[in-house]
Amino acid sequence: MAGNSFGSIFKLTTFGESHGVAIGGIIDGCPAGLDIDFKAIAKEMQRRKPGQSAIVTQRKEEDEVKFLSGIYEGKTTGTPIGFIIENTNQKIKDYDHLKDVYRPSHADYTYDKKYGIRDYRGGGRSSARETACRVVAGAIAKQILPQIKINAFVSSVGNIFIDKPYQDLDFTKIEDNPVRCPDTDTAEKMEAYIREVRKQGDTVGGTITCVIQNVPTGLGTPVFDKLHAELGKAMLSINAVKGFEYGSGFCGTKMKGSEHNDEFNPDGSTKTNLSGGIQGGISNGMDIYFRVAFKPVATIMQKQQTIDKDGNVVEMQGKGRHDPCVVPRAIPIVEAMAALVLADNWLLDKTSKLSDI
Amino acid sequence: MAGNSFGSIFKLTTFGESHGVAIGGIIDGCPAGLDIDFKAIAKEMQRRKPGQSAIVTQRKEEDEVKFLSGIYEGKTTGTPIGFIIENTNQKIKDYDHLKDVYRPSHADYTYDKKYGIRDYRGGGRSSARETACRVVAGAIAKQILPQIKINAFVSSVGNIFIDKPYQDLDFTKIEDNPVRCPDTDTAEKMEAYIREVRKQGDTVGGTITCVIQNVPTGLGTPVFDKLHAELGKAMLSINAVKGFEYGSGFCGTKMKGSEHNDEFNPDGSTKTNLSGGIQGGISNGMDIYFRVAFKPVATIMQKQQTIDKDGNVVEMQGKGRHDPCVVPRAIPIVEAMAALVLADNWLLDKTSKLSDI
Amino acid sequence: MAGNSFGSIFKLTTFGESHGVAIGGIIDGCPAGLDIDFKAIAKEMQRRKPGQSAIVTQRKEEDEVKFLSGIYEGKTTGTPIGFIIENTNQKIKDYDHLKDVYRPSHADYTYDKKYGIRDYRGGGRSSARETACRVVAGAIAKQILPQIKINAFVSSVGNIFIDKPYQDLDFTKIEDNPVRCPDTDTAEKMEAYIREVRKQGDTVGGTITCVIQNVPTGLGTPVFDKLHAELGKAMLSINAVKGFEYGSGFCGTKMKGSEHNDEFNPDGSTKTNLSGGIQGGISNGMDIYFRVAFKPVATIMQKQQTIDKDGNVVEMQGKGRHDPCVVPRAIPIVEAMAALVLADNWLLDKTSKLSDI
Amino acid sequence: MAGNSFGSIFKLTTFGESHGVAIGGIIDGCPAGLDIDFKAIAKEMQRRKPGQSAIVTQRKEEDEVKFLSGIYEGKTTGTPIGFIIENTNQKIKDYDHLKDVYRPSHADYTYDKKYGIRDYRGGGRSSARETACRVVAGAIAKQILPQIKINAFVSSVGNIFIDKPYQDLDFTKIEDNPVRCPDTDTAEKMEAYIREVRKQGDTVGGTITCVIQNVPTGLGTPVFDKLHAELGKAMLSINAVKGFEYGSGFCGTKMKGSEHNDEFNPDGSTKTNLSGGIQGGISNGMDIYFRVAFKPVATIMQKQQTIDKDGNVVEMQGKGRHDPCVVPRAIPIVEAMAALVLADNWLLDKTSKLSDI
Repeated sequence: MAGNSFGSIFKLTTFGESHGVAIGGIIDGCPAGLDIDFKAIAKEMQRRKPGQSAIVTQRKEEDEVKFLSGIYEGKTTGTPIGFIIENTNQKIKDYDHLKDVYRPSHADYTYDKKYGIRDYRGGGRSSARETACRVVAGAIAKQILPQIKINAFVSSVGNIFIDKPYQDLDFTKIEDNPVRCPDTDTAEKMEAYIREVRKQGDTVGGTITCVIQNVPTGLGTPVFDKLHAELGKAMLSINAVKGFEYGSGFCGTKMKGSEHNDEFNPDGSTKTNLSGGIQGGISNGMDIYFRVAFKPVATIMQKQQTIDKDGNVVEMQGKGRHDPCVVPRAIPIVEAMAALVLADNWLLDKTSKLSDI
Repeated sequence: MAGNSFGSIFKLTTFGESHGVAIGGIIDGCPAGLDIDFKAIAKEMQRRKPGQSAIVTQRKEEDEVKFLSGIYEGKTTGTPIGFIIENTNQKIKDYDHLKDVYRPSHADYTYDKKYGIRDYRGGGRSSARETACRVVAGAIAKQILPQIKINAFVSSVGNIFIDKPYQDLDFTKIEDNPVRCPDTDTAEKMEAYIREVRKQGDTVGGTITCVIQNVPTGLGTPVFDKLHAELGKAMLSINAVKGFEYGSGFCGTKMKGSEHNDEFNPDGSTKTNLSGGIQGGISNGMDIYFRVAFKPVATIMQKQQTIDKDGNVVEMQGKGRHDPCVVPRAIPIVEAMAALVLADNWLLDKTSKLSDI
Repeated sequence: MAGNSFGSIFKLTTFGESHGVAIGGIIDGCPAGLDIDFKAIAKEMQRRKPGQSAIVTQRKEEDEVKFLSGIYEGKTTGTPIGFIIENTNQKIKDYDHLKDVYRPSHADYTYDKKYGIRDYRGGGRSSARETACRVVAGAIAKQILPQIKINAFVSSVGNIFIDKPYQDLDFTKIEDNPVRCPDTDTAEKMEAYIREVRKQGDTVGGTITCVIQNVPTGLGTPVFDKLHAELGKAMLSINAVKGFEYGSGFCGTKMKGSEHNDEFNPDGSTKTNLSGGIQGGISNGMDIYFRVAFKPVATIMQKQQTIDKDGNVVEMQGKGRHDPCVVPRAIPIVEAMAALVLADNWLLDKTSKLSDI
Repeated sequence: MAGNSFGSIFKLTTFGESHGVAIGGIIDGCPAGLDIDFKAIAKEMQRRKPGQSAIVTQRKEEDEVKFLSGIYEGKTTGTPIGFIIENTNQKIKDYDHLKDVYRPSHADYTYDKKYGIRDYRGGGRSSARETACRVVAGAIAKQILPQIKINAFVSSVGNIFIDKPYQDLDFTKIEDNPVRCPDTDTAEKMEAYIREVRKQGDTVGGTITCVIQNVPTGLGTPVFDKLHAELGKAMLSINAVKGFEYGSGFCGTKMKGSEHNDEFNPDGSTKTNLSGGIQGGISNGMDIYFRVAFKPVATIMQKQQTIDKDGNVVEMQGKGRHDPCVVPRAIPIVEAMAALVLADNWLLDKTSKLSDI
């Protein structure tokens, strides 16, 4: 109800402000008997962490996950998995100037209107720091579904985009460059552009494409909780996201039915896959792929005019250590949210057919 | 869990197959004391109804709503509102050829894989007929929020699109043409194109833009259930939808922060509105606007090769009465889903602040 | 949220007032592929129906269930099962005197205070007529769990009670007498007492004992949704219920641990079963048994003083056709609610252990 | 779904095993702007704490609550309140003998059957240590409802019970003796009996009565989530509880309608209150009162025969520091759960009537 939970059977509830004591969460409904691969979790946390390359924020956050429950001798026990990540490197003074000021295109104003109070330090609950908890839960969700492969990558930064279908890309190259773009030439252009934008004290947006392979048929439910509707909600809940499309997406609106329909092969696979692996809200076994739009980060190192809480016009300039472009660091978050949706729908599907129960 | 409910406080649960006895639903959590405007409901049903113009399906469905409970002497009583819409005009023979055949880009194959059984007549549960129940509930949701204005319109069909910002459009003209496009010249081009596509036995996609005005500040919750994430899920749950973007959307990914940020006026409104009326998942009082992508209808009147349930290749051709372009009839559905999201979030917000309770 | 849904995976949502057009419900999450035994459903409806014997209300309600969706050629399809029961025999004039009067110990006053409006005819939503929908859903839940045996019976009426442990009773005799008490001698005394009470224009309470046999181990979840907590809520949600106890119940509070503990047999069964088949909220494979307390029906055929909505003191006398003792007709309702809890928890348990998924 | 959450708007989710790193929880949906009284929380924790008197377990647990989020400068911010309580005094060796042994009438066996794995140390998740988190949340729920007075007290221990209606008791005396029985003479007898039972290495059960005063009318919803059904579930979810009755309870089953009905006074209050402050599932403004049955603690300091996980018969004897009678320490838990139910239903009721929203 209050919006801090995600999922139905495999369910994550999170808490925590950017500059409070700690952030954390509870994963409820993780099946018992899973051997947790803690290194895999740490690796995902590293991918999301600030300060990992020259083109992201230089803020340091250790992001060490402490598991408090639900795991005994390395195995899940079926009881809730509680975890915290302490906020160790809080430069609160960086945020003093924000106490009474509403930053343009941030959540400062809306939180004040809704709650009448806000923890302004580092954006409080509206900070993307919250997504660290999603990455923890997503890393565990991935381990429940070892056969499913989830690969997200940066497909555009500003006007620079990969000019190839995803089938022509080598996903093993995603981590080879700081932009997380598997097309080396495009990655270099993107990186150069991000550096340039940063020099200007500015920021830039981009898109992430996510491809999910080896998906079993039958995941997702009809009507309101269609698999792509859940994926869409999951992605749109990530900070700075402005759009979501799957399969043919917005391009598909320009096509005719005779071009768009995916003809079947005798084995049930399809010759084309404009459907994006989902038909009627249920996975059909083909690759699921979708694209997520991220706006430019709102905090810029340029002077901006804004207002304080009394409506006085004030001038402000971003301080602190912020990302010039958020998409490289958003890759593990997109994957984590996709994993949460799939794990939950995989468990939900276990009771669909009486003959399989 | 099984995906047939939408909302948390103001909650719709629906049932029904295209060619079963009836479709219907239960609206739970509607506040007591609302004077139901039944004519307004009937009007919305008319807008969604097949056969309303020359460019939509000529199938006739009366779509008369029977309310069974929750309303006494014209007023809601706070108890659940049960309603049904009988399926009166079922030409079941139209669908006999589909019994064992999987239509390309329909849900036939995935339902069979998930459930091992399906009511193939008219698409069964996967038919867009189900959206009639959404329109009923949405029409009531609109009546709870009389001050909020929700206007959806067709913004593109194939490659034909409105080349103006929504602020330059006259929403009172939306219903003036069968395409539901408020820009008369564009509407004519769209209509001509749809007629041409229909003659080819083909279909075409399009987009719908929805603008919500007079929204109070403070609707929506942070983190997973951000207002735009709920709107996105709502729209993606509509049949044939492939994408959703709000505010600057995918275009925003090409912008710099210095261009994208919405500067404040002293009264808290913003000079621009690339945020689309939502910041940090919470409404800021500016117009909410978003765009929804619809693929071309999968049923075409051309021969297509496909398979039956045993994997035999068979040839099929669409029969029955189908829409060449679904967007004109999807307008009231988009508005209904938007109304459901807003009504629910308006009620949810009533307990946000202790001083207001 | 608004209280008209029960269950999480196997979920029933109901609607309907006693004297509206119809009552009904939606069963969501019923697995696909169940061959519905419609006769078994009708039989349960007969057991709950008014007018079935001389000691219950002589009101006639046909209670014919019309299934509208979710079942195709006799089998569940995995989509929501919508159903209605029309209200055919409404003697609304019987209720005219109640329009502005609050009957003692009924819900008239509280509905008015909560909602500011109520459908007073026959008690509206607060009428036990609503339980007919529970019996429909419960009858389907029983069919999902054919191996589990649920037997409820009347264990006391007023001060008359069965003086034997349930193990000494023959459950096949429950339906042999109108009281639904399997102990013939006690049944006769109960029946005579109910007839006497009815002659006085009065009513009397009683208890129902329910025994559930052949329960798999592992149903239920720890902490808040313990199996007995769900059963308790289910029973307490039935009209006129004032108490619930399972296993040793209130008697157990007088015992010492050394007397109360159930020692294990080598096969995991226990020598005694004061635990009532549930330990730590999870079924242990022994019989689950519990007892439910029903107060005397509030509508009596004697003059009572009460108030109208303006606070004026008025005299009233029950009219219409009411039960002198509700427990015989509550038997199928208790069983239905137990079946709903078990079916839901059986489905929930399917994702508890990774090795079993 | 996995059973670790309670409530709908005001929602508590907990985690943690008795001897893990920490227990804790997340309170989601607490309205913003509440000045937290931390001393009041600490006081409730003291009341639940082991080692507080001679008649409870001498185990020491500091139970210091660390709040991690959701509170800024002493006020709730509307974001989730995360908290942990570290497990500081773990004598794990006390539990080594339990690794492979199933204690009679504990949850050891059922956890193993359900999950295939368990953290046996101190009972793991099934330990009553989990209830500390409920007390934290309940203490905050009480602060949301300052006008409502919740008083629970021990009404019986074994066969010793208070022989007076609650109206004749002085609730200010509840904390005057270690049993938490406000009737001094009875309290002395209870204490003496508990000491005697402890000497025998045995345990004994008891009942708690809870009285809630100054309740607004209109709390609770009809049908499945009746206010007393929620209270019943809340109480039955507490460790060792075997029964729940409210108002006239099981005694009411022996009464006639003419005796049981609560006649109205002109102001809407009732002359008697056998209804227990709730009619049709909704509060009527009279005192809510109910009684909760607790079985004797299963861990006794006597030799018992039991089995290990391979079905071998073994002899065991309780070790460690356990309560001879759990009811004195369960008082704050009963109050906490009652407060959670009331706070949630108070918030839920805010959207019942359109004219009040």
